[in-house]
Amino acid sequence: MSTPHPLSQLSISETTTARDVVRRSHPNTVLNFRVIFLLEPPKVDVEAYLELEHSGKLTAESPRPPRLAQAWYDVIGNTRIPQYHETIVDLTKAEIVDQKVIDPKSKPSLAMWEFDKVIKCVETSPAPWPYGAPDPGDDDERVFQALLFAQDKRSGNPDSNFYAYPLPIIPIMNYNKGEIIRIDMPATGGGDDPLTGRTNFGGIIDHCDTAEYVPELLPDGTRQDLKPLTIVQPYGPSFRVDDNLVRWQKWQFRVTFNPREGAVLHDLRYEGRSVLYRLAVSEMTVPYADPRTPYHRKQAFDFGDGGLGHAVNNLTLGCDCLGVIKYFDGVLVDNEGNATPTKNVICLHEQDNGINWKHTNWRTGRAVVTRRRELVVQFIITLANYEYVFNFKLDQAAGIVVEARAIGIVSVVNLDLGKTAPWGNVVNPGVLAQNHQHVFCVRIDPAIDGSNNTVVQEESLPVAMDPKTNPHGNLYEVRKTPIAKSGGFDVEPLNNRVFQGYKLVTPATQKLLADPRSVQAKRALFTQHHLWVTKYKDEELYAAGRYTHLGKNETGGVTDAAARNDDVLNKDVVLWSCFGLTHNPRVEDWPVMPVEILQVSLTPSDFFTQNPAIDVPSDKDLGSQSADGCCREPRL
Amino acid sequence: MSTPHPLSQLSISETTTARDVVRRSHPNTVLNFRVIFLLEPPKVDVEAYLELEHSGKLTAESPRPPRLAQAWYDVIGNTRIPQYHETIVDLTKAEIVDQKVIDPKSKPSLAMWEFDKVIKCVETSPAPWPYGAPDPGDDDERVFQALLFAQDKRSGNPDSNFYAYPLPIIPIMNYNKGEIIRIDMPATGGGDDPLTGRTNFGGIIDHCDTAEYVPELLPDGTRQDLKPLTIVQPYGPSFRVDDNLVRWQKWQFRVTFNPREGAVLHDLRYEGRSVLYRLAVSEMTVPYADPRTPYHRKQAFDFGDGGLGHAVNNLTLGCDCLGVIKYFDGVLVDNEGNATPTKNVICLHEQDNGINWKHTNWRTGRAVVTRRRELVVQFIITLANYEYVFNFKLDQAAGIVVEARAIGIVSVVNLDLGKTAPWGNVVNPGVLAQNHQHVFCVRIDPAIDGSNNTVVQEESLPVAMDPKTNPHGNLYEVRKTPIAKSGGFDVEPLNNRVFQGYKLVTPATQKLLADPRSVQAKRALFTQHHLWVTKYKDEELYAAGRYTHLGKNETGGVTDAAARNDDVLNKDVVLWSCFGLTHNPRVEDWPVMPVEILQVSLTPSDFFTQNPAIDVPSDKDLGSQSADGCCREPRL
Repeated sequence: MSTPHPLSQLSISETTTARDVVRRSHPNTVLNFRVIFLLEPPKVDVEAYLELEHSGKLTAESPRPPRLAQAWYDVIGNTRIPQYHETIVDLTKAEIVDQKVIDPKSKPSLAMWEFDKVIKCVETSPAPWPYGAPDPGDDDERVFQALLFAQDKRSGNPDSNFYAYPLPIIPIMNYNKGEIIRIDMPATGGGDDPLTGRTNFGGIIDHCDTAEYVPELLPDGTRQDLKPLTIVQPYGPSFRVDDNLVRWQKWQFRVTFNPREGAVLHDLRYEGRSVLYRLAVSEMTVPYADPRTPYHRKQAFDFGDGGLGHAVNNLTLGCDCLGVIKYFDGVLVDNEGNATPTKNVICLHEQDNGINWKHTNWRTGRAVVTRRRELVVQFIITLANYEYVFNFKLDQAAGIVVEARAIGIVSVVNLDLGKTAPWGNVVNPGVLAQNHQHVFCVRIDPAIDGSNNTVVQEESLPVAMDPKTNPHGNLYEVRKTPIAKSGGFDVEPLNNRVFQGYKLVTPATQKLLADPRSVQAKRALFTQHHLWVTKYKDEELYAAGRYTHLGKNETGGVTDAAARNDDVLNKDVVLWSCFGLTHNPRVEDWPVMPVEILQVSLTPSDFFTQNPAIDVPSDKDLGSQSADGCCREPRL
Repeated sequence: MSTPHPLSQLSISETTTARDVVRRSHPNTVLNFRVIFLLEPPKVDVEAYLELEHSGKLTAESPRPPRLAQAWYDVIGNTRIPQYHETIVDLTKAEIVDQKVIDPKSKPSLAMWEFDKVIKCVETSPAPWPYGAPDPGDDDERVFQALLFAQDKRSGNPDSNFYAYPLPIIPIMNYNKGEIIRIDMPATGGGDDPLTGRTNFGGIIDHCDTAEYVPELLPDGTRQDLKPLTIVQPYGPSFRVDDNLVRWQKWQFRVTFNPREGAVLHDLRYEGRSVLYRLAVSEMTVPYADPRTPYHRKQAFDFGDGGLGHAVNNLTLGCDCLGVIKYFDGVLVDNEGNATPTKNVICLHEQDNGINWKHTNWRTGRAVVTRRRELVVQFIITLANYEYVFNFKLDQAAGIVVEARAIGIVSVVNLDLGKTAPWGNVVNPGVLAQNHQHVFCVRIDPAIDGSNNTVVQEESLPVAMDPKTNPHGNLYEVRKTPIAKSGGFDVEPLNNRVFQGYKLVTPATQKLLADPRSVQAKRALFTQHHLWVTKYKDEELYAAGRYTHLGKNETGGVTDAAARNDDVLNKDVVLWSCFGLTHNPRVEDWPVMPVEILQVSLTPSDFFTQNPAIDVPSDKDLGSQSADGCCREPRL
C-alpha cells in the first residue's frame, strides 16, 4: 500500500496501529474505545503539501504532514466514574504525541456499547435517547433517559411500528452505576391540563391504534400504478475516483468519512483553481417545545451527542440513489478498539436537474439547450426515530449546494384520548407529535484562489428619486460591506443580502425559539445567527463545541471562536452557515414524514471569466421517447 | 369529435368559427387579429358541471356551461389609430354575446405581425423591445423602441452572439405612423460620468469582443468528458392522458394552453378530493436599475406585454425533458385570424427527485425507503434575450411546487472601454449587464374540499420563560390568524410565517426596489406584497391588470381586487404569490446564464389522515449499477 494522502481517512491497519499504541500506554488496564479516526494535519502543513502536489513538484522526498490518529476512550480504573481520555498517536513513529484526561464535566458522546448496556438495563425499552442537559443534581453523572414504546405483536411482524404506542414512562439510568435511578412520569394531558401530574386513569395505550409503514402491513397495500423510472448510463459515470480523489467535470476534491461529521469534502478545486479547503456538516440540534417536565430535556445534538458513526446508514444499491453509484466505506471501532470496515457509508452519483441554460435565437430559430448535471456526495443517518439525508451537490457551472433532507418518523409522546395540546399535533389516537426545530450548521472553509479570503456582505437597497442621480426612480444601490471582524451575521432576504467571494446564499429561516435563558438556548448558541465568520484555527470544527452530550452550555463552539474578535479581512476565514426548519408536525408527516428539503448554495461570482458551463454539450438525449401512442389508453 | 369539456382549450375549428363570427360583424373592414382563445365559463357554471361529472351523474342532457371564445383584434378603419376590440363569441350559437371597443388609453399586447413591421421599419435592428411606459407626450401613441446590436459576420455563422456588440442607438418607432419618430442616444459612460451625453468619441463597438455560446463557435469546443445519462421507462409513464385530462398517482387535473398565461392547470384533485380550481403564472415584471434615460423604460411585463403565445418554445424531444414525454399543442392565430396549431408548447413528464421517505428500524435493521417521483408540466418562453422555464410539479405526497427558472442571456448595453458603473457589471469588453429584478406572480385559486376556503396565517413565536406555563423556556407558540379581509400580506421567514389551508410557502424574496413614485413602481403595484388574498371574480386573472403594454399605472390588477376590502373568511378566495430574484449579474452569467431557480410550494396540512405517499412502493431499482470496477481507471 502506498503512503496515504494527508487527506485520506485512516485505513484499517492505521486504526489498529493507533489502538495498539494507546493500549501500550495503559498497561494492565481495561479500555473502552469510543472512536479512533484521522486527526487532520495542521493546515499549514497540508497547504504546503497541496501546493507541491498541484504544481506537480511533489516527490518522494517532499516533506509530508504528520500522519495522526485521535483515539477517544474510557479508562476503566479504580474510580467509580471512568476517566475519559483523548490521545493523539503519530502513526509513522507509532508513538503518542498528546494524551489528555478530560475533565468529567465534559462528557464524551454515545458509543454503541453504552447504548446496548442501557437497553439491557431498561430491557423493555426500544429507544434510549440522549438525556439532554442534566437537571440540577445530575451534574457529574452519565445519565440516560429511555423513551418507551409498546409494540403491537398481533401482526407477528417485528417491524410493526411501535411509535404508535408511546408509553408515558421514562426510566432514567445512571450509566456508571448500571442502574435505573428514577422513573419520570410525564403528564399525558392536553393544553388545558396542568403541566405535571396524572390525568389518564384508564389503560395508558388502550386508546392507541396501529400506524404502519412497512409495505406488508399497509391495510391497502402499496399503490400499483407507479411504473419504473431508471437512470441508465451506458458509458459509465462521468466521474473518476482514485483512492479518495474524485474528479468530475473540471471539479476535483477528496472525500473522507469520520464518525463525528460523516462525509467531509477536502481541497475542492475547479479547473485547477482552489475553491474550498474543507466542507462538512458541523452540527445540528433538535429542541422540542413541549413545556412539560421532562420533555424540556428532549434536545438532540445529532452530530455531537449521537455517535454519528454508528448512526450512518449502509447504503444499498437501487434504494438510496439511482444510476451508476460509487460507494465509499468507513472505518469504525468496537469497545476494544478493533477496527472494522463499515460498508457504503457514502455514495457518489450523478443526476440530472433539468435545464441549466438555454437560448433560442429568435431571428434564426436556433435553440441551444444544455442540461444541469450534478454530482452528489450523499450520506444518511438514522437517529432512533429520525433520519437525515445530507447531499453535497456540485454542478457544471462551478456551484455547490449543501442539502439537508429531514425524513423519518416524528418524535411522539402519549396523550389522553380526545385531548389536544398547543405544543404539538395529534397524528394518531393517543399520539402527540411535539413541535420542534431542526437547526443545522454547515462549516465552510473557503480557499478561493488561496486561503486568505474576505467575506463581503452585499445588499441591494432602494435609492430615493433624485433629479440628478436617479431622475426616474428606477436606480437601486448594490452596497458591499467587507466583514472586518469575526462575529455573527444574519440574512436579510428582503434586502437580498448575500455573502460574497463565492456568493453564499444561506436560507432565511427561523432561529432557535427557546427563551435565551433556557438550557436549550444556552447549549445551542450557534443558532443565534445565520452566519458566523471566524478566523481559521486547527481542530475548530464543531459549531456547538466538542462536548455537547450532557452539556449545559455551548463551550468551545463557534460562538467562542467568533468572540475572539479576530481580524478577518483578507485572512484565513471560516464560514458557518446555520439554518433550520421549524417543524410543527402535520398529520401528513405520520407515520413516516415526506421529505423536507433545505439548501445552502455557493456560487462563483466574478471569479471566472464567463459561465463555467458554457462548454457543456447540447447533444440530444437519444433515450427520450414520446408518450404518444402509449398513454392515451388506460394501461394500468 | 365529441363535445369539448368546458375546461378544454379551443380547437382549430372552434377558433375558426370565432374568427368567422367576428368577421361577419365587421363587413367590408380589414381586421388584424391578435389572439383568439377560450373564455373560461363563469365559475358557478363550471362548478355545477364538475359536481355532476365527479359524482358520475353527468348525462348528455346535463346543463353545460356556455362555450365561449374571446377575440382581441384591431379594426383598421378611417381613424389614424386603429380601434382595438375585444369580442366574445358563443360558439354553440355562433353569435356575438359581447363586443367592446377598448379606450385607446388601454393598449393591447404585442402581436407577431407588429413585431415584423417594427423590424422592417428599423431594418438593422434585431431586437425590438416593448417600450415600457410612455414618456409624457407619447401618451396616445403606439410606440416601440428597438434595442440595436451589431453582429460579427466574420464567422459566417448566423448564430454568432450579437449581444456582445450592443449599439448605443435606440430608434423609436410610432407604429401607427409606420415611421421612426426619434432616435434615443443613451449615454455610454461609467458611474462617474453624467447620466446623459456622449462620452465615447471613438468607434462605438471597436472595443467589443465576441462571446459565443453555440457549440461550433466555442474557441475550445465543448467538454468531452460528460457521459450520457438517460431516463428509461420500459413500461411507459405512470400517467394517463385523455384529451386534456391528466391522471397520475391519485392526482387528476386538466391542462390548457392560452396565449396570455401559457400552461394553466384546472380542477386539481387528489384521491378525488378537490384541491385547486385553477393554477397559473399570472404575470412577471423585469425592471432595470440603470438610471439613465431611456433605460428607465426597460421594464418588461413578459406575460401582459409580450404576446406570450408567440414567445412559447416548441419543445423538442431529447432536449427540454428526459424520459417519456407527452406533448400538448396550442392554437394561435395570424393577423387574419387563421388558426394554426403550435406544436409541443407544453410537455409532461415524470422525474425522480431523490428520497421521499425512509426509516430504518434500528432494532431489526430493516430499512424502508421510497423515492420522490414528480410529475412535471413544463413550458418555456423566449422573450428576445431572456428565457424562462415554468414547471408545475406534483408529488406523491399531494404537494404542488410551482417553479420558475430564469435562463437565457442577460440584457446588456454599450459601455466605454475601461469604465464601470454601479448599476451593472461589465461582463465582456464594452458590455454592461444592467442590474435588474424579476418579480413573478403565481395565481392560485384554491378549492380545498370546495370553493369556500379561509386563509390562515401561521407563525411560530417565542414564549417567555414562566414558572407556570413555560418553566424550562423551551415552549414556543404557534399562532394562527385567519385572514378576514382581502389585502396584501408579507412573509416573515424569521417567524416561520406560512399560510395555511393547504400550507403555502412563498419565498422570502426582495420586493420591487424602484422608488414608489417611479413609473416602474406604479405599473407593478402587485410587487408590493408577497401574498395577496382576494375574493374570486370571474375573469380577474392578471396581477398587473389586463393592459400592461404601454401602461403607466397598474389598473384592474390584484391591487385593485384587494382594495375591494372583501370579506374572505370561508369565501371563494384567490391567492396571489409574488416572489422574485434581484439579479445583479455575475460575469458567470455571461454569455448565457446558468439557471436560477425559484419555487413556491403548496403542501397539505392536516387535510389527509396520514402521509399520502405512505403507500408508495419501496421496490429496489433494478437498473442501478455499482461504479466499482468501471471507474477506478481513467476512461476519459
